[in-house]
Amino acid sequence: MLIAERVSNIKHPHGINQRCQNPRSALLPAIRSPSNGGTPSKIKLANFTDSILNYNLPPWRSSIARALHRNRSLPNARYIQLATIDNNHRPQNRTLVFRGWLEPESKIKFVTDIRSSKAINLLADASPWAEACWYFPKTREQFRLGGTLELVTSACGNTSHSQARQAAWEQMSDSGRVQFDWGTPGADRSEDPQAFNPPQPDEHQPSANFCLLLLDVRSVTHLELRGEAQNCYLYGLVDGEWVIRSINP
Amino acid sequence: MLIAERVSNIKHPHGINQRCQNPRSALLPAIRSPSNGGTPSKIKLANFTDSILNYNLPPWRSSIARALHRNRSLPNARYIQLATIDNNHRPQNRTLVFRGWLEPESKIKFVTDIRSSKAINLLADASPWAEACWYFPKTREQFRLGGTLELVTSACGNTSHSQARQAAWEQMSDSGRVQFDWGTPGADRSEDPQAFNPPQPDEHQPSANFCLLLLDVRSVTHLELRGEAQNCYLYGLVDGEWVIRSINP
Repeated sequence: MLIAERVSNIKHPHGINQRCQNPRSALLPAIRSPSNGGTPSKIKLANFTDSILNYNLPPWRSSIARALHRNRSLPNARYIQLATIDNNHRPQNRTLVFRGWLEPESKIKFVTDIRSSKAINLLADASPWAEACWYFPKTREQFRLGGTLELVTSACGNTSHSQARQAAWEQMSDSGRVQFDWGTPGADRSEDPQAFNPPQPDEHQPSANFCLLLLDVRSVTHLELRGEAQNCYLYGLVDGEWVIRSINP
Repeated sequence: MLIAERVSNIKHPHGINQRCQNPRSALLPAIRSPSNGGTPSKIKLANFTDSILNYNLPPWRSSIARALHRNRSLPNARYIQLATIDNNHRPQNRTLVFRGWLEPESKIKFVTDIRSSKAINLLADASPWAEACWYFPKTREQFRLGGTLELVTSACGNTSHSQARQAAWEQMSDSGRVQFDWGTPGADRSEDPQAFNPPQPDEHQPSANFCLLLLDVRSVTHLELRGEAQNCYLYGLVDGEWVIRSINP
């Protein structure tokens, strides 16, 4: 419980100084429904804790879980802008879909095409550093998640990562899967109509172009625009433990 | 009309090959209302063309104007994620509000605090390169705008930029202006309540902390997620003229 000890006695994002004595209590606010006076929803509690009770989650995970829940009516609440640096030392920025967490490390999962510029740059040893900007329109809050990227290709030798890639492929929709066999992204528009109408790929056999992209988060800034004078929290890793600071917005 | 000539004979984003013989005709689609069968709104046409008829606008301006119009019911359609590179060669990414265009160069206007990390990095000669990612939720389209940043501070010696900074200050709301006199962004949360309750600044006298931030756009990628097999257009500068390519998404 080292993480919990390090974040105790610090002004908590939910407005109270509280000890985070176990991951479950730290996460409880995330599954409280704002519409029922804060009483935890039993159904959601069961679903949610099934997948996380065995991990010591970073303290910022509960804030993101709460934002996802409160913005669940908006499809674009799962869209994240990911900034990277290309091999010409220039920033690139694009919208990606949040595909969940790789546990137990709390890495953010995205998917990408090995022929995309971000994959090409990573394979050519561009900087692995990235910052994800995740804005939630309904609750008007922003998370900036800085860290390093790992590209999981078909040739990945890490068993757990390969399994995560396989699972991500199986969780894609048919229309999402087929895009990995479209014409080369960024090339001149293919005139052959078959370039965008390939055979539907096997749902259990990932396209060779399909990659999992993992963001290993090292710092988080959480800005709540709605608070009085706005609230802002900075989470960082110190000696492998998460610490939280309340900062000016 | 060099720009129009260069973009003629290229597959047009609106699905037809058309000559853009003058900026007004190129911009007309931007102010057609989707709800009235495409008939231009006379009131909007008058307002819109007042400000742009004297410029040769880059061809991507009409696509952004149309997206802004069609997404005008969503406040967050004016929010842009701006990626930059800090002095540690790491990407930074945050949401900023679109404050309009600096004409005639079509530079994107943002505002920022001179004490913010992006301003501090620019003043310390960090890379001026940036990429803005602008996602429009209603029409499901994304613009990636790459270019270089210029910070316009109170000490700026460029008269037109200084005037633009002054105008941007005057266009801010009272609640927006007062934030530039709040406690230092990123510092430990100020415990003094007065740090977030300073006197309301003069609406004609910009705070010394207030900066205009200009993005000089050099490349634009426009992705339409709704099209059949999606449409994607790449606009680039070649010998000072805008050229457009239709590319695979």
